[in-house]
Amino acid sequence: MPMQRWALQIEYDGGPFVGWQKQKRGLAVQDVLEAAAARLVGEPVAATAAGRTDAGVHAEGQMVHLDLPDRFAAPAVREALNYHMKPHPVTVVRAAAVAPGWHARFDAIRRSYRYVILNRPGRPALARGQVWHVPRPLDVAAMTEAAAHLIGRHDFTSFRAAACQAKSPVRTLDRLDLHRDGDRIVLIAEARSFLHHQVRNMTGTLKLVGEGRWSPPMVAAALARRDRAAAGPTAPPDGLFLVAVEYPNDPFAM
Amino acid sequence: MPMQRWALQIEYDGGPFVGWQKQKRGLAVQDVLEAAAARLVGEPVAATAAGRTDAGVHAEGQMVHLDLPDRFAAPAVREALNYHMKPHPVTVVRAAAVAPGWHARFDAIRRSYRYVILNRPGRPALARGQVWHVPRPLDVAAMTEAAAHLIGRHDFTSFRAAACQAKSPVRTLDRLDLHRDGDRIVLIAEARSFLHHQVRNMTGTLKLVGEGRWSPPMVAAALARRDRAAAGPTAPPDGLFLVAVEYPNDPFAM
Repeated sequence: MPMQRWALQIEYDGGPFVGWQKQKRGLAVQDVLEAAAARLVGEPVAATAAGRTDAGVHAEGQMVHLDLPDRFAAPAVREALNYHMKPHPVTVVRAAAVAPGWHARFDAIRRSYRYVILNRPGRPALARGQVWHVPRPLDVAAMTEAAAHLIGRHDFTSFRAAACQAKSPVRTLDRLDLHRDGDRIVLIAEARSFLHHQVRNMTGTLKLVGEGRWSPPMVAAALARRDRAAAGPTAPPDGLFLVAVEYPNDPFAM
Repeated sequence: MPMQRWALQIEYDGGPFVGWQKQKRGLAVQDVLEAAAARLVGEPVAATAAGRTDAGVHAEGQMVHLDLPDRFAAPAVREALNYHMKPHPVTVVRAAAVAPGWHARFDAIRRSYRYVILNRPGRPALARGQVWHVPRPLDVAAMTEAAAHLIGRHDFTSFRAAACQAKSPVRTLDRLDLHRDGDRIVLIAEARSFLHHQVRNMTGTLKLVGEGRWSPPMVAAALARRDRAAAGPTAPPDGLFLVAVEYPNDPFAM
């Protein structure tokens, strides 16, 4: 039977998972989606994601592709996968048929992440697992000034996990905005692609600036050092969301 | 020892609780807060809330008062109560010393609620328990037109739970706005006070309009009937949040 490639926008709570990608131990989002697809079609199905989010990292707009026998309409693909993924906190938000060569990861031209800090003394009750709780007040203006030093094309070695498998540490950071929304500080980061832990390492470093322990120019200096030890700690995964992935042609607009 | 009255702003996830108020069975938010206060001072403490939220209803800005021996500063009250409330999803966001006669319920002059509908085919992954999932598209413009019939001073018998203990079914609804935010429909309701289930019953009725099963004027007719059976079903508690309670003098501004 001829196959049809599908682009899926998926949402998940990263809390119970070892991350997007299958591991030797523990349950991955990929396991849940591939098992649902296998139940739908009766044979193994491989799924490829735009971003390999780490354990505990959430997604509103992760993009995935997989191939299914050509006998389903888009609503049926979405509904059937969602049915088989119960009760795991993973949902197919949208499904669209795409050309056979369409690739969720290699065709992506922009990834948007949001990092949410709950900046108040009391721990989160409603958003537990979905924010980084920082009890002491952070100076968002200073963090914004520091963030400006990271925007643009740089060697981001200082903000790259030791385990990062990318060939080059050079990335172009298109956007790194911060704003306060009540007791939250929301960071938005956009780039064609990011290094492993890059958003969490930038966030952990900007937090030092927000606390007044670092001045904004120290972030520029840390970047210039090209040494992971020169930047701040890695922020926890809880506050990070993969919000959207863009393609030259939006698969859902066709 | 002289006593000090405290006003507390508390946040909670209503999911695991039988509601704010103590019941014969099950755990109430009031139980958690009173137990924490008792552990702090070594004797029983009674807490009174502005709104007796039902089982499963959430709060970002519930207001509570209680009396403690006069030996604590505000940060200590907040921190100690939060420490003793672990691991329950209840947090004191702010604490302020108030006059002995200050009353969280009777002094309140405005209550604001938010109701969130997730209006998309896929079930919630990130916000499960904190939205009402309505898979079919709702017509927000029609719902807004219908909501206008409810604003103002009316006999809300048609939107009142059978168990409601209020003496009068007359309330003045100051605001009932709806807007779409991506795949969510957010309803904001404000009044000096609400009847039992009023927001959920209004929401369940507006959903009938959003589905096209009711016309907007049918909501006005249901209101005029003064009969609970004339209005729509009660929306589930999951999507409802007590957002804020206002007082003639903001206890946290002093």
